[in-house]
Amino acid sequence: MNFDLIHGINPVAEALLSGTRKPLELILPSGRLAPRLEQLREQAEGQAIKIRLMTKPELDRLAGHNRHQQVLLKLPPFVYAELDQLLDHWRSSGRSAFFLVLDGVTDPHNLGAILRSAEVAGCHGVVVAKDRSCPVTPVVEKTAAGALSHLLLCQVVNLSRTLEELKKLGIWCYGLAGDAGSQNLFAADLSGNLALIVGSEGKGLRPNVRNHCDGLLAIPMAGQVNSLNASVAASVAMFEVVRQAG
Amino acid sequence: MNFDLIHGINPVAEALLSGTRKPLELILPSGRLAPRLEQLREQAEGQAIKIRLMTKPELDRLAGHNRHQQVLLKLPPFVYAELDQLLDHWRSSGRSAFFLVLDGVTDPHNLGAILRSAEVAGCHGVVVAKDRSCPVTPVVEKTAAGALSHLLLCQVVNLSRTLEELKKLGIWCYGLAGDAGSQNLFAADLSGNLALIVGSEGKGLRPNVRNHCDGLLAIPMAGQVNSLNASVAASVAMFEVVRQAG
Repeated sequence: MNFDLIHGINPVAEALLSGTRKPLELILPSGRLAPRLEQLREQAEGQAIKIRLMTKPELDRLAGHNRHQQVLLKLPPFVYAELDQLLDHWRSSGRSAFFLVLDGVTDPHNLGAILRSAEVAGCHGVVVAKDRSCPVTPVVEKTAAGALSHLLLCQVVNLSRTLEELKKLGIWCYGLAGDAGSQNLFAADLSGNLALIVGSEGKGLRPNVRNHCDGLLAIPMAGQVNSLNASVAASVAMFEVVRQAG
Repeated sequence: MNFDLIHGINPVAEALLSGTRKPLELILPSGRLAPRLEQLREQAEGQAIKIRLMTKPELDRLAGHNRHQQVLLKLPPFVYAELDQLLDHWRSSGRSAFFLVLDGVTDPHNLGAILRSAEVAGCHGVVVAKDRSCPVTPVVEKTAAGALSHLLLCQVVNLSRTLEELKKLGIWCYGLAGDAGSQNLFAADLSGNLALIVGSEGKGLRPNVRNHCDGLLAIPMAGQVNSLNASVAASVAMFEVVRQAG
């Protein structure tokens, strides 16, 4: 059976509390439990979640490592949408296309905050690069504050190919970049069909992804610190789209 | 002597790494140290930070509680600016006033991200309510990504009095609120002297603070999740000011 595996005391506690996906099974070591693990066991029992006991080597084997703090939680896998579903959602909305594409957002708090903003801004869906994105963990779901119940999130293997697909449909692909060659975000016309491409926290867009963009945008910066938090930058750009759609 | 006291293994490790304020003294229990505490000791020694050993009851007494994980770090106190310095900075800038006032942002990551955005957006300074704000901890400093070396941060006891002071100087006080009576952020004229007032993550602006605002602004929200992360909301509003100042 297919499942997501959460490990560690705090992440498991988070997943038991958040309730976005009903856990399948809590896995604990056999024998006497440390107080914190005992608490998790009671919490899971209270929610009628199945509990399985394993030996330490079995825990290591299932987790694939030994950094699990002796607790694992199986969750039903997060269900990603297909790109076609995102496109259908756009077509049936009667609005200009508004997609967000993430190229390497790996911090779960940033990813969660971005997804929350995308939902609030009315994005038709978010596309992430499979090997360059943080998976949807309970921390992401919690930070997204419920957005993942409403927002279509699609995982693709080849981001460049997806951008080419979007461009063929008449969707303008704008990369968010900080450098000199970029157009001022507030001077760009963002009123048509568009996808906004946001890079990683540290390195921004990969050169290959940049090359597939129709244009690059920069948020004007007045201070000495010349970068913004990734979720802030993505959100400022998304709400400029909202403003122009007015 | 005046100092800030950090407690707990992770916060102390963070403070030793961040280097925004040079630590005054690392305080550890006498006797054999646990491996994680031993690491901190070596790290502090490498930075020529003074180390003091204390008994467990002495640690409890200095911390004022027993949740310190047996490690304390003394930092030189964070230096807040006076409101007059913020006003002077505005007057000498030749630009319209642009202040940010925070009424109850208590999450250190949110506070740090907001301060970073405020610096990047060119705010003349940020005012926080003394009893309703998270103090400037190493986590705040790290999340602010260096902004606190450039941004004036002022702590006041009575926020309402500060708003009245700003209003007397011809500074328009706009509260960021989500409710029906508010004006659409993107339809408001934000081009003059202004202070933006942002409330707490959960509860927004206090009624008393709202009553001192000249107007209320709302970010238009299209989705089902009808709220944004506090640092995102504050940043979207600040960059609308930047856009209008153009």
